[in-house]
Amino acid sequence: METRASAHSRLAADERRDQLIRKGVELLGSRAYDQMSISELARAAGISKGLLYHYFPTKSEFVVAVLKQSREELERRIAFDRTLEPVAALNASLDGFLGFVEEHAAGYQALARARSGDDELIRGELAEGRRRRVGGLVGFAAALAGAERDEITSPALEAVLSGWLAYSEELVVRWLSEGALERDDVRRLLRHALLAGLASVALVDRSEAAVRLAEAASS
Amino acid sequence: METRASAHSRLAADERRDQLIRKGVELLGSRAYDQMSISELARAAGISKGLLYHYFPTKSEFVVAVLKQSREELERRIAFDRTLEPVAALNASLDGFLGFVEEHAAGYQALARARSGDDELIRGELAEGRRRRVGGLVGFAAALAGAERDEITSPALEAVLSGWLAYSEELVVRWLSEGALERDDVRRLLRHALLAGLASVALVDRSEAAVRLAEAASS
Repeated sequence: METRASAHSRLAADERRDQLIRKGVELLGSRAYDQMSISELARAAGISKGLLYHYFPTKSEFVVAVLKQSREELERRIAFDRTLEPVAALNASLDGFLGFVEEHAAGYQALARARSGDDELIRGELAEGRRRRVGGLVGFAAALAGAERDEITSPALEAVLSGWLAYSEELVVRWLSEGALERDDVRRLLRHALLAGLASVALVDRSEAAVRLAEAASS
Repeated sequence: METRASAHSRLAADERRDQLIRKGVELLGSRAYDQMSISELARAAGISKGLLYHYFPTKSEFVVAVLKQSREELERRIAFDRTLEPVAALNASLDGFLGFVEEHAAGYQALARARSGDDELIRGELAEGRRRRVGGLVGFAAALAGAERDEITSPALEAVLSGWLAYSEELVVRWLSEGALERDDVRRLLRHALLAGLASVALVDRSEAAVRLAEAASS
């Protein structure tokens, strides 16, 4: 049986862990994690390096926990609102995305670089994030076409959505790093490219659902 | 004054260097350079490791020379044929691109990963390749709109073209690694996305040239 003291200290440990992750998310907004040392992370969190290693045995594990938390926040901000018309929901989702990215500019740029980096744990978490975003966009495509997910899912649709995520990453990195584009410009370009991409699926997939999707995306 | 012997051996050295690069391009088609060791490269080229280091002091320098050669080949294959109508030239260029990529599948997939890798020399060469491709596509956009390059160049156009290159990389990697899409599917999707992207520039750039480009790309 657990004593009150051990339950208490376990709770404290969980809280400390969460607090470290929150601190990491905050730090990730203002600088690239790959330019951050474990000592700096510990200092920023106000704990010793040894204690940080107690919670996260390797830097990768810490970064992955931070990325996961950050992804969950992103997913809340970009979730498609099912009470809205699909295109209004898309606009709201794009606004949520650009707002999130603006707040985590340095972190986002580092992620874009880390996507194909050497760290397998980090790459895995980023790939998982992309898979989940493709899944969310398949849901949007289904709503737009008035179809079931199963009817609409195809290799072409997934390729187009994954391609659009790469497209959006490139535009966002340019917007954040060069400032030559306004946020509203980026939103318009992303919206146009996504709808054009959805319409293009019917060029290679002649299913009824893909044709309906093309009609809805072009109107 | 140079003796005949030293001129001869210099020529032989240049030839040997070119031969090594050609061998590298060939190897790059069948496997990822980052999984190749210097010893393997030397063995494949039939020379000693020491001699390879004589021509290329570091692996990065060898890889960069190979990438450059490979990029020059790609540029020949995708060059827009100015004797054709712009859209016919686009189709030919996309075919050239997909043919090149198909022949260098393993290398292309490695490049897509290396784009944001740790090696600064390699990253620099890949960034240069992308800049040059954006430049080539600006030329296509100008031809399509019947405009001068200077009239049509804008941050929005460059962002869209750079985004399209990221989009195409994602589709190509899926095509090569999963085989769920046919080459013709990829060509149709890329063509559609490029024309849609060019049309979208007028959403954020109301110049006359951008409007003309949108009309030409939508027709």
